[in-house]
Amino acid sequence: METENAGDPEESDFNAWYNSLVLKAGLADYGPVRGTMIVKPYGWALWENIQTALDKRFKATGHENAAFPMLIPLSFMEKEAHHVQGFAPELAIVTHGGGEKLAEPLAVRPTSETIVGHTYARWIQSYRDLPLLLNQWNSVVRWEMRTKLFLRTLEFYWQEGHTAHATAQEAREEALRMLDVYADFAINEAAIPVIRGEKSEIERFAGADMTLTIEAMMGDGRALQSGTSHFMGQNFAKAFDIKYTDPNNELQYCWTTSWGLSTRMIGAIIMVHGDNAGLVFPPRLAPTQTIIVPIYKNDAEKSEVLGVANAIRDELIDLNVRVKVDSREQYSPGYKFNEWEQKGVPVRVEIGPRDVQNNTVVVARRDQRGKEGKQSIVRATLGPHLLALLSDIQRNLLAKATDFRDSKTYDVKSYDELKQAVTQGFARGWWAGSNEDEKRIQEETKATLRCLPLEQPGRSGTCFYTGKMADRVAIFARSY
Amino acid sequence: METENAGDPEESDFNAWYNSLVLKAGLADYGPVRGTMIVKPYGWALWENIQTALDKRFKATGHENAAFPMLIPLSFMEKEAHHVQGFAPELAIVTHGGGEKLAEPLAVRPTSETIVGHTYARWIQSYRDLPLLLNQWNSVVRWEMRTKLFLRTLEFYWQEGHTAHATAQEAREEALRMLDVYADFAINEAAIPVIRGEKSEIERFAGADMTLTIEAMMGDGRALQSGTSHFMGQNFAKAFDIKYTDPNNELQYCWTTSWGLSTRMIGAIIMVHGDNAGLVFPPRLAPTQTIIVPIYKNDAEKSEVLGVANAIRDELIDLNVRVKVDSREQYSPGYKFNEWEQKGVPVRVEIGPRDVQNNTVVVARRDQRGKEGKQSIVRATLGPHLLALLSDIQRNLLAKATDFRDSKTYDVKSYDELKQAVTQGFARGWWAGSNEDEKRIQEETKATLRCLPLEQPGRSGTCFYTGKMADRVAIFARSY
Repeated sequence: METENAGDPEESDFNAWYNSLVLKAGLADYGPVRGTMIVKPYGWALWENIQTALDKRFKATGHENAAFPMLIPLSFMEKEAHHVQGFAPELAIVTHGGGEKLAEPLAVRPTSETIVGHTYARWIQSYRDLPLLLNQWNSVVRWEMRTKLFLRTLEFYWQEGHTAHATAQEAREEALRMLDVYADFAINEAAIPVIRGEKSEIERFAGADMTLTIEAMMGDGRALQSGTSHFMGQNFAKAFDIKYTDPNNELQYCWTTSWGLSTRMIGAIIMVHGDNAGLVFPPRLAPTQTIIVPIYKNDAEKSEVLGVANAIRDELIDLNVRVKVDSREQYSPGYKFNEWEQKGVPVRVEIGPRDVQNNTVVVARRDQRGKEGKQSIVRATLGPHLLALLSDIQRNLLAKATDFRDSKTYDVKSYDELKQAVTQGFARGWWAGSNEDEKRIQEETKATLRCLPLEQPGRSGTCFYTGKMADRVAIFARSY
Repeated sequence: METENAGDPEESDFNAWYNSLVLKAGLADYGPVRGTMIVKPYGWALWENIQTALDKRFKATGHENAAFPMLIPLSFMEKEAHHVQGFAPELAIVTHGGGEKLAEPLAVRPTSETIVGHTYARWIQSYRDLPLLLNQWNSVVRWEMRTKLFLRTLEFYWQEGHTAHATAQEAREEALRMLDVYADFAINEAAIPVIRGEKSEIERFAGADMTLTIEAMMGDGRALQSGTSHFMGQNFAKAFDIKYTDPNNELQYCWTTSWGLSTRMIGAIIMVHGDNAGLVFPPRLAPTQTIIVPIYKNDAEKSEVLGVANAIRDELIDLNVRVKVDSREQYSPGYKFNEWEQKGVPVRVEIGPRDVQNNTVVVARRDQRGKEGKQSIVRATLGPHLLALLSDIQRNLLAKATDFRDSKTYDVKSYDELKQAVTQGFARGWWAGSNEDEKRIQEETKATLRCLPLEQPGRSGTCFYTGKMADRVAIFARSY
């Protein structure tokens, strides 16, 4: 979308483009209960690749997976004062089980800090049990009123990490480490340049002392919070009595963190890279990296062309390329080109009778449509050519998205400049405002303080809103 | 358990052994809501290996993964008459969401035939859309009263496959194909010899025309249904209006299947292979296949021994062995031996100062405890030796379990013989009884008709119960 719609993206156009693309490309569908989503095979294959890339990183940083129950006693939700305020309005409540009314209603988990906290209190005895570093892949339910496929649904899929530590410093380091894991994943796998930052007090997770976020800019200039990592201080440790005996045999409260990344990331991939022809998937996450389309007019050509197409597929599979041959009879090559472009497959390989004769194939890259992205190459060189091409597309998508974001990030020196900037993209300015100032800006501009970036200028400046001296810049934007 | 307890396993001993082992080996814990389970990292790592082995087989047979919502309108459950009878008593019901009473209550899925059926009716139009072959990895909730970790819990983890076909024959073939996938997995990955068979009418899945099962014998002689595959006929297609236009442009109802395998399989692995020292994991699924225990008395020895231990670990990782070094300071080697035996790790490698000097290591196999399973080998040969050893252990576990099962399967010619047989293991006999006969046997012996095996003698015999001529043998057993 960024190229075609550059300049002045129409909000309603972008929304319509997104909703229709998610359905037409076969990523997801609406579930029968209002606000729920069915993730279709093509969307789930993308999520599986996201899971694999993240899970590897979680394990490399010492985390293990586990599974906590989805049903949580309602009383657990009430133990941490901020947490219950944040989540009580969004709960789905089970009141009956096995044909009987339950003595205590149960919440379908909206997130698992409470049940994990209750369990950690039993599991953790000594400093030797720390740090405890667990993650869970699951789905959670939050009763959202305004839903949108992948971005905000009543049930969504994610991972939630929960860790307990002996000291505040270790817990803070963990929260930051996992933010870095998310940023590394977003940049190097999803080709999405993200800004690592801290949320303001009023945007914090319910129960956290510090919420870290990665913020990405979508193709219409809006922000999407794409993953968060929370330092909980001792809030949950005190609410759930998570204590350990230290080496001096004294009882101490633990320090905890949690961090999550969800199927929202799929929405980000669509809205950052997509264009008017459809999805554009980064090669590292694309369910299908290369589609081979055979072209023929009669049965003799067909058997010749399909033979070569299948041989090429097998060669590419040996190189660990995720590749398919589209040998469907009922569709023309042109129809197939359009369909696979819409599905965002990074590279298309075309083979016709002349290619077979000449030992060539035509290679077309999704990120450069039209003639400039199309090339005839010698068949024997296809393997190495394709591997290089996939890397180049990955790099190019990241570069394009970074250029786009930078071109739509405006340094603002006044409130008027901010008002103008947030209609286009991100507003970045020196910030010394109060919580009330922040809320007023949100009411008046529909833009929120997305984050206080971790990378700061390292000097002071004049707050664009209050005129006071400020030592940090903040980013404001309208968001999903 | 099979060796130590052979002859006359005490039911209560076996149960106590199982429950205590699941907790002590760190596989699972009880959740705060009665009947729920927390799967701990060691148990979840085993489940991940099960998932990987099955998922590969599902994809190789043309299936794709997708995700359907967990919340199902209660009215869906009522559309298939047998299905609602079977599942209504076990439902967890969400009555409130977002602070308000819902217009229609929702069920937390106990299984997804209904919501999948509703969706397939929208997705399937033409014969070109068939077969539709999807699978989902998720958790389901069934309000069970008598629960047992892994075997029967209020929420459990599984996969559920759901397919739709143009003809009855294709759907029957699919149900059988997936039963074969389960059997292949059980035998070749879990080292559990299973009997493939058909359930009797009264043991069928609620809504199925045919239920296929794999049945395994546990270490106390009882049966465990370890995976099922259902041919639904057109029952769900008619209840949910799943139709397609055939090549003659005529509307036809689809034929559907479903099939599932759950975390019960973990219970099966524990109860088939475990012994009085703890778990015995088949190498192909074991989270840790080899544990290296360094042995030393002082710091000089420690640095020498740990250096070699870590080098060996890295060599084994290169051979794709799942291996760890247990370098914990606070425990003695003997304590570690016991702990890893309890955790069922297939091979232990011990390294002391003398081994370092002699370029040897000691290798101990979990399936043969004591001296006969222990061997000193030249360090340079460890890699190939270990790979062969892991294969041999895998083979040995399957052979042992097969011998045990065969030795406790009794051909019965009379009801009295059956009564005796089911106190020890499986009773196999010619069967021509009615549903009423079957129920009476269950009431009187606590044994159920586990299955009519797919492999039959191919002749006739006299029914052990009715005295009538029968053309099939059935297997009866007490079960979990």
